[in-house]
Amino acid sequence: MRHRTAMLTVNQRQYKPPRQPTVVVCVDGCEPDYLGQAVAAGQMPWLKRTLAEGTGLIADCVVPSFTNPNNLSIVTGAPPSVHGICGNYLYDTATGTEVMMNDPKWLRAPSLLAALADSGHSVAVVTAKDKLRRLLGHGMKGICFSSEKSNEVTQEEHGITGAVDMVGMPVPSVYSAELSEFVFAAGVQLMRRKKPQVMYLSTTDYVQHKHAPGTAGANAFYSMMDRYLAQLDDLGCIIALTADHGMNAKVGLDGKPDVIYLQDWFDAALGPAVARVILPITDPYVVHHGALGSFATVYLPAGTAAGPLVSQLQALPGMEVVLDREAAAARFELPADRIGDIVAVSERFTVIGTSAERHDLSGLDAPLRSHGGISEQRVPLVINRKLPGLDTNRRFRNFDAFDLALNYAQ
Amino acid sequence: MRHRTAMLTVNQRQYKPPRQPTVVVCVDGCEPDYLGQAVAAGQMPWLKRTLAEGTGLIADCVVPSFTNPNNLSIVTGAPPSVHGICGNYLYDTATGTEVMMNDPKWLRAPSLLAALADSGHSVAVVTAKDKLRRLLGHGMKGICFSSEKSNEVTQEEHGITGAVDMVGMPVPSVYSAELSEFVFAAGVQLMRRKKPQVMYLSTTDYVQHKHAPGTAGANAFYSMMDRYLAQLDDLGCIIALTADHGMNAKVGLDGKPDVIYLQDWFDAALGPAVARVILPITDPYVVHHGALGSFATVYLPAGTAAGPLVSQLQALPGMEVVLDREAAAARFELPADRIGDIVAVSERFTVIGTSAERHDLSGLDAPLRSHGGISEQRVPLVINRKLPGLDTNRRFRNFDAFDLALNYAQ
Repeated sequence: MRHRTAMLTVNQRQYKPPRQPTVVVCVDGCEPDYLGQAVAAGQMPWLKRTLAEGTGLIADCVVPSFTNPNNLSIVTGAPPSVHGICGNYLYDTATGTEVMMNDPKWLRAPSLLAALADSGHSVAVVTAKDKLRRLLGHGMKGICFSSEKSNEVTQEEHGITGAVDMVGMPVPSVYSAELSEFVFAAGVQLMRRKKPQVMYLSTTDYVQHKHAPGTAGANAFYSMMDRYLAQLDDLGCIIALTADHGMNAKVGLDGKPDVIYLQDWFDAALGPAVARVILPITDPYVVHHGALGSFATVYLPAGTAAGPLVSQLQALPGMEVVLDREAAAARFELPADRIGDIVAVSERFTVIGTSAERHDLSGLDAPLRSHGGISEQRVPLVINRKLPGLDTNRRFRNFDAFDLALNYAQ
Repeated sequence: MRHRTAMLTVNQRQYKPPRQPTVVVCVDGCEPDYLGQAVAAGQMPWLKRTLAEGTGLIADCVVPSFTNPNNLSIVTGAPPSVHGICGNYLYDTATGTEVMMNDPKWLRAPSLLAALADSGHSVAVVTAKDKLRRLLGHGMKGICFSSEKSNEVTQEEHGITGAVDMVGMPVPSVYSAELSEFVFAAGVQLMRRKKPQVMYLSTTDYVQHKHAPGTAGANAFYSMMDRYLAQLDDLGCIIALTADHGMNAKVGLDGKPDVIYLQDWFDAALGPAVARVILPITDPYVVHHGALGSFATVYLPAGTAAGPLVSQLQALPGMEVVLDREAAAARFELPADRIGDIVAVSERFTVIGTSAERHDLSGLDAPLRSHGGISEQRVPLVINRKLPGLDTNRRFRNFDAFDLALNYAQ
């Protein structure tokens, strides 16, 4: 039924307005194997049924496979070359400072959430960490709050009051599985009480950084998630489930993080602090990954040719692909003006650091698991409906979630 | 100390004869993460110490990442293009039949083990399954037997009697962790009683097909292995530890095997049974993997161009790389006359089958884990010695194990 004419066009993609309550869920760090192992273990009865009766796809996320770029891609339906958010952290060449990329000033494209709200639809957003809230809610009229700061919500700023009472859970620690459970619980309560037409839920990957697919710690998380998703389904929601990125073990044979310390490498090659290595995984919450991921970008001094350095870096054990700025921007659909002269992506078991002395790994109480690379690009894309007319052999992206939910599943 | 002149040359590589008892261990299906997780969990104290005091490398195995090609590469120091063993199973174009590749008639190169024995060194080989024994022991004077048939050994055929009594374990089931433990226990007893100058131990991947890295089932296996390796070390052995291939989960979101049924695809494309899909993982012991791996080769009828089919296959979701015969032979160092017109390698989470009806998956009592592809090419290469003079940035192969043990570690 595509005869309704009030199509929304956002970032050059067209969307049908929702006719049923529609929920897109971004499960942070949800390597597809988490779902497969949990279903096989009987821990996700809703998902098992949904895969049989709906649609289960594998999609590619955005590289760098980090949280901010991918959440923004999902809500804009576009890659970072369009929306501008290419990391959690960047080097601001205008000011010569390294900053978190949490400020909406970095956004270059409107979100579908804002466009839906503008066209008169009720929209609600719940994120685990507050760092994402301002980006996701930028320009959007409606409900938008985080688990982390759920006790600080105001009608003016967040479109809601009494969120903690509504959810009925204490405000969780930022390092906990409950921070994500709060998102799901809030989503169910919002759908029961406020009946938003569109809802976006985004969790945190605290559990995935610590627990491998199929382990008790992971299965407990996914079992919890399954129960809430079943409740949303029972409420009549169309649900599209995807992830911002996957997650892999990142350790050497000795169980310690397998790190290429790239600033140390450049300091040895070019002299101390001549090049500037930026790790876009960097965020204020580094206890569970020590700011170690599989993606880095490097700023070289003016006049230094990238080519020979790219070749040398490519030959390092554990390095998957190294590209100069233009090639990286083209391959990964990144804004060329916001990445360095070189982009380096390490392999599945290897991460990239700056200098050994600058990474505090003392908080790692389990073997490192992390993301950022091509090896974490595969994510689930599950819709609790059959999608007639969809070419399931095409390449799917996680930022097709709203397209499938609004244009195919209604 | 490289002044000894009695160098052995085997398959165009030179080896110094052993001056200390030298043991090369091939741990079947030993994805590197098994070691990392077990060390991190405190389950492998010998390995932890060895990595600190010796040499821990990551190496590439041969693709197809199966048992026979890689075991033969390790003992010949050469890729399948030299030794001829390109699978566990092949289509014999001379007779038009599909056969196991366990017969020494398929071997095109001598092993280093045979050469060492010929030059007067005492050599012992213990394998888990008997299928490998004849290939590994071909042309070799010395001790060579399997756990599986350890109760049938004769002096004439196996170079030893009373193997079961020597080991002090009952003959294990072919589907058990004990089949591999028997290999290690036999190795320790042989080193104590017979003092071979060179020993090759090769286990089976029953445990790895069922248990992911870091799980209790995996850690128990690696803890067992660690205890035996510590005993060999205490006996003064130089130990080189490597693997035939890695191992990955091979399931979809529903926890079931994620299979591309390639014979069905060709039957639909070209007509029933026009093309012949061969799965070189096939062996008589398929309960734990259902003959599903990430590598297949396809024979086309005369006159059918491979090119268009290669392009179509490459576009299938889950397919990593598809090559025609010549390209595959060049890239993977395979004997072109023993592979089909097309070689297909699937991705990390995907396997290739023939026809759905020809795979009995009823024996799978855990989510499928398997191998065969490029995604299982990384393997550990650990030597319990520092290796002065070694360029650790070079690309290592698992079939460098004897080179490192004999030429660098003595």
